Amino acid sequence: MIDKDLYPELTKRWEKIRSQMKRENIKACLLTSSANLFYTAGRVFKGYIYIDSENEPLFFVQRPIGLNGDNIHYIKKQEDIKPLLSELLGSLPENVAVEADFLTYNEYKRLEKAFEGIEFKNATSILRGARSIKTDYEIGKLKESGLKHAAVYSHIPGIYEEGMTDDEVSIEVERISRKFGNLGMFRIFGSSMETFAGSVVAGENADNPSPYDFAMGGSGLNPSLPVGANGTILRPGMTLMVDLGGNFTGYMTDMTRVFVVKSLENDLAKRAHNCSIEIEKEIMKLAKPGVPVKELYELAVSIANNAGLKDYFMGYSQKAGFIGHGVGIEINELPVIAPRSRDILEAGMVFALEPKFVIPGVGAVGNENTFVVLENGLEVITVFEEDIIEIGF
Amino acid sequence: MIDKDLYPELTKRWEKIRSQMKRENIKACLLTSSANLFYTAGRVFKGYIYIDSENEPLFFVQRPIGLNGDNIHYIKKQEDIKPLLSELLGSLPENVAVEADFLTYNEYKRLEKAFEGIEFKNATSILRGARSIKTDYEIGKLKESGLKHAAVYSHIPGIYEEGMTDDEVSIEVERISRKFGNLGMFRIFGSSMETFAGSVVAGENADNPSPYDFAMGGSGLNPSLPVGANGTILRPGMTLMVDLGGNFTGYMTDMTRVFVVKSLENDLAKRAHNCSIEIEKEIMKLAKPGVPVKELYELAVSIANNAGLKDYFMGYSQKAGFIGHGVGIEINELPVIAPRSRDILEAGMVFALEPKFVIPGVGAVGNENTFVVLENGLEVITVFEEDIIEIGF
Repeated sequence: MIDKDLYPELTKRWEKIRSQMKRENIKACLLTSSANLFYTAGRVFKGYIYIDSENEPLFFVQRPIGLNGDNIHYIKKQEDIKPLLSELLGSLPENVAVEADFLTYNEYKRLEKAFEGIEFKNATSILRGARSIKTDYEIGKLKESGLKHAAVYSHIPGIYEEGMTDDEVSIEVERISRKFGNLGMFRIFGSSMETFAGSVVAGENADNPSPYDFAMGGSGLNPSLPVGANGTILRPGMTLMVDLGGNFTGYMTDMTRVFVVKSLENDLAKRAHNCSIEIEKEIMKLAKPGVPVKELYELAVSIANNAGLKDYFMGYSQKAGFIGHGVGIEINELPVIAPRSRDILEAGMVFALEPKFVIPGVGAVGNENTFVVLENGLEVITVFEEDIIEIGF
Repeated sequence: MIDKDLYPELTKRWEKIRSQMKRENIKACLLTSSANLFYTAGRVFKGYIYIDSENEPLFFVQRPIGLNGDNIHYIKKQEDIKPLLSELLGSLPENVAVEADFLTYNEYKRLEKAFEGIEFKNATSILRGARSIKTDYEIGKLKESGLKHAAVYSHIPGIYEEGMTDDEVSIEVERISRKFGNLGMFRIFGSSMETFAGSVVAGENADNPSPYDFAMGGSGLNPSLPVGANGTILRPGMTLMVDLGGNFTGYMTDMTRVFVVKSLENDLAKRAHNCSIEIEKEIMKLAKPGVPVKELYELAVSIANNAGLKDYFMGYSQKAGFIGHGVGIEINELPVIAPRSRDILEAGMVFALEPKFVIPGVGAVGNENTFVVLENGLEVITVFEEDIIEIGF
């Protein structure tokens, strides 16, 4: 099943998982979420991967039929795994970590019963920890996504026509993005967020609070999905914030740019946008391996406060509690750049920074970029114009 | 919070839930999934709705800020709900049903602890049961989706240009669909399926098995999402099956049509497509309230078998185990039209039928339509050309 070329890469990931397991005294992991299967097996299938410290990982596959390769064992149901493990390994582990923050309660209970006698542990921190430090291969995939993400945004000025609404712009950007290879799939850990392609908000809609844990809101087009574009017609002087997903490789970059029809006259909005650029610059000076991520958050807040922009920072009516987040297979990986985060920067982390402002009467301003943590600082992988981009000439 | 116009409609839904609760001796439901909140509150929010048999539902809201209306209580965390319930109702229920097939294990355990002393039950069958019988309002929303879904498909012949790939067609159909108001969001119950916009499969790709529980496969463009279009260039005589989602209203229709570049020469494929049309016609004669859905499945299988098409029915290398499924807020609601289903047709059910075939060397054939169960039969709500549609002239 596993691409031979990918085997050395996957071995690195298994080793990272094993070293996390050792720290938590966990003997084996049994994983089934698409995100963790893609990470550990290089592809999504219906079934489970079993990783322990001594043996090659085992693949217990329900679907699709016809996968070939070492260590693949077809099963009908999860109850088949334990007897197969006994047979294949000659013994059973004393504990197994499963995805307690992904499996539903009923899925977990069924699996727990199928593994009676073996203690169940939680695999979340092991996998989120391992996945937070990207391999060179993964960074390559993220850079490819970043390049394409920026290329897509470069087409936005050409899309705009007078009288367009925010969702009409979104639709055309989505199309271009798909033509550049965006898979569309927007993977999110947990249930705190939902979106289709990401978010485009124009003018006052930026201040409409949403139920989701995104940095910006927007009321959406339907109460079944109350976030993002709401049909606002773009008018001169109003900002248009484009924050669409960049899943071109299975690995997602996150990137926001602000556009304005004709030109932005509002000084507060201009100042706030420049403050966002300054925050990113200052964070680039501070950030390197060993720095606690909460210091990045504190730096951003202090710059915004010193500029007299506190009221507008990270939302006006409703504020987001973070300024950035890890990205990778999912949009909300570790580290979380928030005041109470205990995460420490390490080389190989990849995260998005989105110091944004909502200016009443104008809209949202501020950029978002995706960065890789290098040995001596940050590298931006969503390289594109940082200023507000004027459209509609 | 609740739209006043929607109040009588929501009251109907609450009553349906209450009658299901009564049958299972459940005193209250506490729901938090987007699908069930949209169903019971008319909108998505972060928080919980509490429904018991005696009182008006209570809304415990975490986000967004600023929701106004009766019975809205802002909470910081789920632990705030139980004390608030005591205070508001004067007593606590002896049991509460929660979404044990949606909440993660850890979410469930946390909620269970916060409700110590109150027995937890599973709300799945109550909600899936209530939601399977649509109200007139919901049927109206589904009909609106069906009309738009068909209108989108009518544009497909105009999209095609020589040399196009399956994913290029998909991108253009997605755009048109979004312009007709498709919200994009593709809501699925459980984790057995993942997709972006739905599936477009051309030629031999139809026989590539996928890990997901869709009727048809396709290998996809990336191992992180192995389903649907895979970049196949469309050639004369090859079929193109378009099965994209129709969420124009928060309620999704499901609809498949088959296209062929120039014309279809393969007699087996033509015969199989006609058999699909015949199966739908025969099921329309049989289906009405009181009929067990498994009889629909059996009828479909017997028609396919009698036509000598057994090997190709519902897949060739890998077969799907159903021929249809309920639709609504999610794409996989009740009833499931499968051999071991115990569901009985009732007026107000809405389901999709997709008797499909995979013909090696040609591709997939067969239609999918969405039907409403009326008192005396079925009404199709995705009205569109049923024959294979020739494109590329």
